[in-house]
Amino acid sequence: MSTLPLASLDAVTSLDLPGFDTAAAEAATARQMQLTKPPGSLGRLEDLAAFMAGWRGTDRPVIERAQALVFAGNHGVCAQGVNPFPQEVTAQMVANFAAGGAAINQLCRTTGAELDVIALDLDRPTRDFTDQPAMSEEECLDALHRGAAAVDTGADILLLGEMGIGNSTVAAALALAAFGGTAPDWVGPGTGSDADGMSLKARVVTKAVEKHAALAPMMRLAALGGREQAALCGAVLAARKARIPVLLDGFICTAAVSPLYATSPDLLAHCLIAHMSREPGHRRLADAMEKPPLLDLGMALGEGSGAALALGIVKGALACHNGMATFAEAGVSDA
Amino acid sequence: MSTLPLASLDAVTSLDLPGFDTAAAEAATARQMQLTKPPGSLGRLEDLAAFMAGWRGTDRPVIERAQALVFAGNHGVCAQGVNPFPQEVTAQMVANFAAGGAAINQLCRTTGAELDVIALDLDRPTRDFTDQPAMSEEECLDALHRGAAAVDTGADILLLGEMGIGNSTVAAALALAAFGGTAPDWVGPGTGSDADGMSLKARVVTKAVEKHAALAPMMRLAALGGREQAALCGAVLAARKARIPVLLDGFICTAAVSPLYATSPDLLAHCLIAHMSREPGHRRLADAMEKPPLLDLGMALGEGSGAALALGIVKGALACHNGMATFAEAGVSDA
Repeated sequence: MSTLPLASLDAVTSLDLPGFDTAAAEAATARQMQLTKPPGSLGRLEDLAAFMAGWRGTDRPVIERAQALVFAGNHGVCAQGVNPFPQEVTAQMVANFAAGGAAINQLCRTTGAELDVIALDLDRPTRDFTDQPAMSEEECLDALHRGAAAVDTGADILLLGEMGIGNSTVAAALALAAFGGTAPDWVGPGTGSDADGMSLKARVVTKAVEKHAALAPMMRLAALGGREQAALCGAVLAARKARIPVLLDGFICTAAVSPLYATSPDLLAHCLIAHMSREPGHRRLADAMEKPPLLDLGMALGEGSGAALALGIVKGALACHNGMATFAEAGVSDA
Repeated sequence: MSTLPLASLDAVTSLDLPGFDTAAAEAATARQMQLTKPPGSLGRLEDLAAFMAGWRGTDRPVIERAQALVFAGNHGVCAQGVNPFPQEVTAQMVANFAAGGAAINQLCRTTGAELDVIALDLDRPTRDFTDQPAMSEEECLDALHRGAAAVDTGADILLLGEMGIGNSTVAAALALAAFGGTAPDWVGPGTGSDADGMSLKARVVTKAVEKHAALAPMMRLAALGGREQAALCGAVLAARKARIPVLLDGFICTAAVSPLYATSPDLLAHCLIAHMSREPGHRRLADAMEKPPLLDLGMALGEGSGAALALGIVKGALACHNGMATFAEAGVSDA
């Protein structure tokens, strides 16, 4: 359990957060150069070893404990008819997570993550952001603190995911507010909108972002986000405080933390994007944040499913880093 | 252990091999449509479930046993100076595999595969193919049968990899012979050639392919391949006979089986390419075979390392397929 000393949203800029341990990362890279393989031949696995080393502050990082955190919320903007699924599905899927029947349950078991699901006041959706701010600053801070509190500070890596009917519309609004462009740049089919549905989503997003554009980035999180978006921001900050690297899931998860990026890109320096979502706005978002996703499997489910799969890649990277013999140990001739 | 009734190389066209079980694959796809997720939202994981179903002949395929097979060989073309590492490294790396110190050992442990390494007459390199055929038909058939014999017919999936100093040159020659173009289309840095080294490799490859171009595809395997390439072809055929799907590793592994593809694309219908190698010819090869790789992590190690990592993705796909609740089971409203 983690707490954040945040009395207001703009106080995120004054948090005292640890930085990347360059010496540990360089020591990890030096080790990689001695392992029995042509230098660089493990590609991103080598980068991952250095990334984990720098954030964990050790040249030999391990993953003994991986936490997957899924936040669920409901959204007032569903009153605009932006989603083909009824809003009750959010609670139904939370029950499915609890019963072990969702994709995220199977994927966490496959790659070895402990799953915690936090349902945030599902019977009390946020307000319709086309009409007024979705949350007050106090409501947003409350959700952010609940997200931070859910982080297991004993974990070696944190996987983040979300569930919330209507939240691809919320994500498009947050992305548009953070990175500009036009609503159609960020709107996609979500859980199954057709062309008419996407046009409606784009109109809704345009209206909302115009209404709240003048706000500072973190106040836009309150105005345009939902509780699960605020909780994801809180979890990212709490993870940073504990030097825990983060795997962000797909489009909605990445957009959720874009107010942090817009505040300062360094706030997401310990975060990787796990997979490239099929949701079209995700590529633009990943490019804007300069975070190339680890996987690209045409997925668009959410729930942290891509993050759970990508954990297997990070574990593979660290298994190589820690378990491989050096050229000297193995008696293999170097080039 | 598997045997193949092959008395000559051109007899591969008359092997009686099982086909894809369309009914099982369709049943798997029907199940995917009922699982608690928007249809299609698991992307390639859904395709993988249907692929495994069709080849295993059941709508609920599982991976209880995964075999990783790595074949090692030495190549006469090293006399042309195509590789910056000395040829002894092949045997040294085989010893490293046996001692558990290589990347493939760590990755097999991470994703749960049993590793078998088959060293093929390392003290007796094939002949220099710029001068004469690398192998006689008998030598090639022998290596092919040894590859087939190494397949564990009780496995649910087979991961293939290779080790052999000089074999990125062999791979470029096989790819050029199978798919045309020019040598520079297929030649890359391999384990660390610079621009001069790549020019040399391209000249060597051009000369060899011109010399042996008139041969039938499987005879080109003998003329241009090495023992590990022939063994990989044998393992692919033996796997097919046992309805075992195959994950091909990177450039060298994919090029190794290109004589089978050139003989008949159907011979590789049960094979997927595990990852996109950083070796530049691999994208062209994957495109030519219409087999988009599962992973793209900038790796170029060989040893089956990409196949071992990709096993985690396939396992995740089947965990979702078999473990998820349906909409009806979970009481979740369908769209």
